[in-house]
Amino acid sequence: MLGEIITQNRLRRPLIHCMTNHVTANDCANILLACGGSAIMADDYDEVAEITAMCDGLVLNMGTPTPRKLDALLLAGKEANKLGHPVILDPVGVGSSELRRRAGQQLMEQVRFAAIRGNATEIATLVQGTAAHRGVDADIEEAPIASVEENAKRLSQKTGAVVIVTGDTDIVTDGRLLYRIHHGHPMMKSVTGSGCQLSALMGAFVTANPDAPLRAALAAVCVMGLCGEIAHGRLGPLDGNASYRNYIIDAVFNLTPAELERGAEYEIDQ
Amino acid sequence: MLGEIITQNRLRRPLIHCMTNHVTANDCANILLACGGSAIMADDYDEVAEITAMCDGLVLNMGTPTPRKLDALLLAGKEANKLGHPVILDPVGVGSSELRRRAGQQLMEQVRFAAIRGNATEIATLVQGTAAHRGVDADIEEAPIASVEENAKRLSQKTGAVVIVTGDTDIVTDGRLLYRIHHGHPMMKSVTGSGCQLSALMGAFVTANPDAPLRAALAAVCVMGLCGEIAHGRLGPLDGNASYRNYIIDAVFNLTPAELERGAEYEIDQ
Amino acid sequence: MLGEIITQNRLRRPLIHCMTNHVTANDCANILLACGGSAIMADDYDEVAEITAMCDGLVLNMGTPTPRKLDALLLAGKEANKLGHPVILDPVGVGSSELRRRAGQQLMEQVRFAAIRGNATEIATLVQGTAAHRGVDADIEEAPIASVEENAKRLSQKTGAVVIVTGDTDIVTDGRLLYRIHHGHPMMKSVTGSGCQLSALMGAFVTANPDAPLRAALAAVCVMGLCGEIAHGRLGPLDGNASYRNYIIDAVFNLTPAELERGAEYEIDQ
Repeated sequence: MLGEIITQNRLRRPLIHCMTNHVTANDCANILLACGGSAIMADDYDEVAEITAMCDGLVLNMGTPTPRKLDALLLAGKEANKLGHPVILDPVGVGSSELRRRAGQQLMEQVRFAAIRGNATEIATLVQGTAAHRGVDADIEEAPIASVEENAKRLSQKTGAVVIVTGDTDIVTDGRLLYRIHHGHPMMKSVTGSGCQLSALMGAFVTANPDAPLRAALAAVCVMGLCGEIAHGRLGPLDGNASYRNYIIDAVFNLTPAELERGAEYEIDQ
Repeated sequence: MLGEIITQNRLRRPLIHCMTNHVTANDCANILLACGGSAIMADDYDEVAEITAMCDGLVLNMGTPTPRKLDALLLAGKEANKLGHPVILDPVGVGSSELRRRAGQQLMEQVRFAAIRGNATEIATLVQGTAAHRGVDADIEEAPIASVEENAKRLSQKTGAVVIVTGDTDIVTDGRLLYRIHHGHPMMKSVTGSGCQLSALMGAFVTANPDAPLRAALAAVCVMGLCGEIAHGRLGPLDGNASYRNYIIDAVFNLTPAELERGAEYEIDQ
Repeated sequence: MLGEIITQNRLRRPLIHCMTNHVTANDCANILLACGGSAIMADDYDEVAEITAMCDGLVLNMGTPTPRKLDALLLAGKEANKLGHPVILDPVGVGSSELRRRAGQQLMEQVRFAAIRGNATEIATLVQGTAAHRGVDADIEEAPIASVEENAKRLSQKTGAVVIVTGDTDIVTDGRLLYRIHHGHPMMKSVTGSGCQLSALMGAFVTANPDAPLRAALAAVCVMGLCGEIAHGRLGPLDGNASYRNYIIDAVFNLTPAELERGAEYEIDQ
């Protein structure tokens, strides 16, 4: 079932307009190439509508924002909606500043998302419009899992988007069905932008599988988690987080539909 | 003959003002260091003229543009011309938006280039002022090779620049002589910014060999292609595009003049 | 003694607001994660005061500046001072343009720094307000070591900051005590942003050890140098500067307090 998502993605080779932060842009581009898609990373207001129009899907990542770039995210999102392209939101640190909170709110009000992926704090911020946020790479304090799941479902019901919350346990929900995924490795928190990379990967999968956004998002979470495990198994005694970062992308490059099918484990809650 | 280009480059250690996109800036800086040059990456309008003046050569890469940055490319290009520094243009996605088309046109009109390197679509856009462009990392649809060569020659004759078109076959021409190079590996398309890296490398080689821009460009294409092959030969079963990216730069670091001399193969057409 | 600096850092896991250039931002984030800290990389004027307030320490790196970003560095620096957070300055290429010279001067006048790390030319520029500067990655011409030490001490006395000058010999001084460190490997000059990475690492160490900025800075210099040696020892015949870059961060990830204690060698001059 999930293997088919990868197969479709490698077949269709979606071109993703990936508007992301400058810290992880290179990794996002390389993970998109690893999975069989490709990327244009343009983020200036004057050209994003045209760039979106020549792509198949759109990823909006709110990291390293400027007012002009946030306006461009909004413009690209609206253009993608008009064209029927799937839009994925990664609300990086959305509670961290007034600038991001305001942009997050505008995006929620004016753009329809196929999927929204964040950590527990970011998703809570989008649901509640509040919450302090410490750090971008990982949550310092995890909320109880029940409230995380509740937030995810509520955000999904409110927006119509598949909502993905990553943490020790990953959650994927369409507001009705909810998947819990326990893949991955704690050391992934030591690789900057592993969340951004997952959002980019998800952008490709959802775009290549437009009729199955829930399964596409689930597949992306399982791929990233499995690849985190495979890459961890490859670490030698001298390897650290820099080699780990490369090995994760390498594993995405090499993962076959059969390996995903065989390896992916998740609980379903309905 | 080509080995001498590397030797001169390692001897002169050119300092390149490398104005590039934020996706591949790190890789461009590292490949410049790998080949024996070095880089300053500054791209703000208020300082680029001064930065250009303290460097030996200039690379203008149009990726992730903003109006301000494009103005800075133009300013730096004119300053480099005034100082007699070689200028290399990488017209990334020049047909993708009105913003880039306009900037591409201004650059063509107001700056003299020593070399222009792009894919078939980008070069066609510069020659014809039109053409749609899909993707940045690779051409989805390759034009017939004869028309690619024709475009390259015409652009070279029009501008006086050495023109380099990269694709399955790479082309290097000064409008009269034309080289066809078959080095490289298809997997290089899975590494983001391999074209940007080649342009940066070419910036160093052309700058260090000011009397031989055609041979310097040919050497850069051969080095990148050979290193793509060497790096591919090094890939283990778990390696993917992330490790490949590192191995390519590693190979540039280690390539000797003798290895280039021995390994480089190309056809000449005149 | 120095091992304790790492221990404290891994215990306190400082969150660093790291305002850096887009060339080395990814490496800075990953080295901060490698050492046990973490980073937010935000650099827009509209949000930096809020971001600084939610972090524990601040690193200001002047690379790839824009006027707006330099204003943001200044604002964040003043906010950090108000909150009592340590501020580290990396005056990348501060003598290279009028834009940077002016920003450097404003930062020196309006922000109190816990530590300032640069190469000999950058430190000389801050002391003297002049000096030409060629290249960013390394000094082409090293000044005599005695004058470098004199400049470091004077800058420290003038600012109250610990001053660190990196070069063939690294210098750490609080204006009275002066350490000379001979660790590292010449090949580190072939990795872009090794200086930026050291400044980021130092930001974590100084923040996690607020009562011992001199020892924290010394520890950071020794860690980076030792890890440069460890990583160099790991290089195979096909490895070059790209793999070296990864191995250095890997080594930081794996370095133990005992290894630092055992390995760190330095001279003290008082």
